[in-house]
Amino acid sequence: MLTVFGSTALDTIRTPKKILKDVLGGAATFAAISASNFVDTGLIAVVGKDFPERYHQILAKHLDLQGLTIKDGKTFRYDGSYDKTLSTRETLKTELNVLADFKPTVPQEYKKSQFVYLANNDPDQNLMLIKEFDKVKFSMCDTIEFWISTKRESVIKMIKAVDAVVINDEEAKLLTKEFNLIKCAKKMMEWGAKYVIIKKGEHGSMMFFDDVVFPSAGFSLEDVVDPTGAGDSFAGAMIGYLASKNSVRLSEIKKAVVYGNVLGSFAVERYGLDGLLQISKTDIMKRVKLYEKMIRF
Amino acid sequence: MLTVFGSTALDTIRTPKKILKDVLGGAATFAAISASNFVDTGLIAVVGKDFPERYHQILAKHLDLQGLTIKDGKTFRYDGSYDKTLSTRETLKTELNVLADFKPTVPQEYKKSQFVYLANNDPDQNLMLIKEFDKVKFSMCDTIEFWISTKRESVIKMIKAVDAVVINDEEAKLLTKEFNLIKCAKKMMEWGAKYVIIKKGEHGSMMFFDDVVFPSAGFSLEDVVDPTGAGDSFAGAMIGYLASKNSVRLSEIKKAVVYGNVLGSFAVERYGLDGLLQISKTDIMKRVKLYEKMIRF
Repeated sequence: MLTVFGSTALDTIRTPKKILKDVLGGAATFAAISASNFVDTGLIAVVGKDFPERYHQILAKHLDLQGLTIKDGKTFRYDGSYDKTLSTRETLKTELNVLADFKPTVPQEYKKSQFVYLANNDPDQNLMLIKEFDKVKFSMCDTIEFWISTKRESVIKMIKAVDAVVINDEEAKLLTKEFNLIKCAKKMMEWGAKYVIIKKGEHGSMMFFDDVVFPSAGFSLEDVVDPTGAGDSFAGAMIGYLASKNSVRLSEIKKAVVYGNVLGSFAVERYGLDGLLQISKTDIMKRVKLYEKMIRF
Repeated sequence: MLTVFGSTALDTIRTPKKILKDVLGGAATFAAISASNFVDTGLIAVVGKDFPERYHQILAKHLDLQGLTIKDGKTFRYDGSYDKTLSTRETLKTELNVLADFKPTVPQEYKKSQFVYLANNDPDQNLMLIKEFDKVKFSMCDTIEFWISTKRESVIKMIKAVDAVVINDEEAKLLTKEFNLIKCAKKMMEWGAKYVIIKKGEHGSMMFFDDVVFPSAGFSLEDVVDPTGAGDSFAGAMIGYLASKNSVRLSEIKKAVVYGNVLGSFAVERYGLDGLLQISKTDIMKRVKLYEKMIRF
């Protein structure tokens, strides 16, 4: 099985055409639901007593929720606004609420997870949590500007402790203090990551392992309405696919990246989680075939 | 044969590590020399009496120069400075000199060219010039912010008059007033272009024809020293490859885009024209094979 640890949130997302109020979001939500297309996925997260029952049902339909804590207090809330091109997002408000002093624990059944994904959490918390798993075959983490700016040394330690880092291009540059993405990846590999995957939004991604560079174009879409959760969906699909194959062979990791591109593309086509919730395995397979055809020459 | 019409310049290029003073440059120079790896290429351009003999020899070694006019006065000069990330360039000075009132004519022998590339010239001048060719099978143009801002209607007319447009992503957005690159391309196709190729720098490119989208990742490079002329080298390789195959089949156009990516990658690895001048056909073939291997999954 796969375990995903991270945030489940109530998001307010302001896009040029539509404002979503208190919708189900959070890095771990997107990653886990994306991964659940491929493999049984357990979620370690916390929500407050205000977490709507209908959102709980959505999570329960796709995920194992033994790791979900429901605490007194309010659910983590995020409020952000996209510019008219959907390329930059301004954070208007972040209310940590129950996330503020959450001490995650790993349910007994999750401890045997061979695949573990640590979403954009406090790197120190990630470092503690990963030690609680007994049989990790492949662990992957993401990180965000906030942790890079406030806990860079811990982020570097976390990178040493996992097999793979998946990270946005701008954050990779900020973290490594390099401009060239190959140089960024090399630095993270020097720090101890075996695999580095740099996400470039609509431009796809680059995967690095040893001296291998695997650049992949994004799945081109004409109608993007809400980029929220695209990177998390990418990461979830990647590790979900690998867990389903129970493999970390390089050829499978490349395929996992392609699944990452494809699930990211589904995520941005609709608002909030809808892009992920309205697809079937057949839709995914069809789009992977379409992607293969699209890039062939 | 292929005819390339555009600017030959003396460039001053300020990069973080090195300043090049009055080096051989210009959109047509890069495009034509890139194309000359694939096919006999004629250059229509103008230089002044100050144009150094050694630069003339470089052009003469690679190109047919019946279309090169040497006029009283000084050669077109460009002076630009890159930021430390090499991702933005500020124009410090542009001296049109002999380019200002240049009336290009097409040498008799060039009129039978089946392939014609119109670099970043005045769109009205491009429109007049393309009519002088009798047997055009495939014509392609590029354009720049300056013409989009000052002569947008003429740019649109030019796009109607050619088969293919090759253009930077930011300029495509500026021209079409769209944000999504597929939407940008569709608008240019509505205006009359059969093929649209949007260049995305290090992120590669997207080619559009009818309802086909062909995204291709860039050739990943660790050491980029001077991005000058990369887009022109891309375009030159594209049309040079097509001219060498005497084909405009879609499958060949996709391959042409790959050659475009590859020649663009050679261009940025060294300063000025050196990246293009120091390669052989074998180097190009090797890198195309390497690219195919790189993106395979």
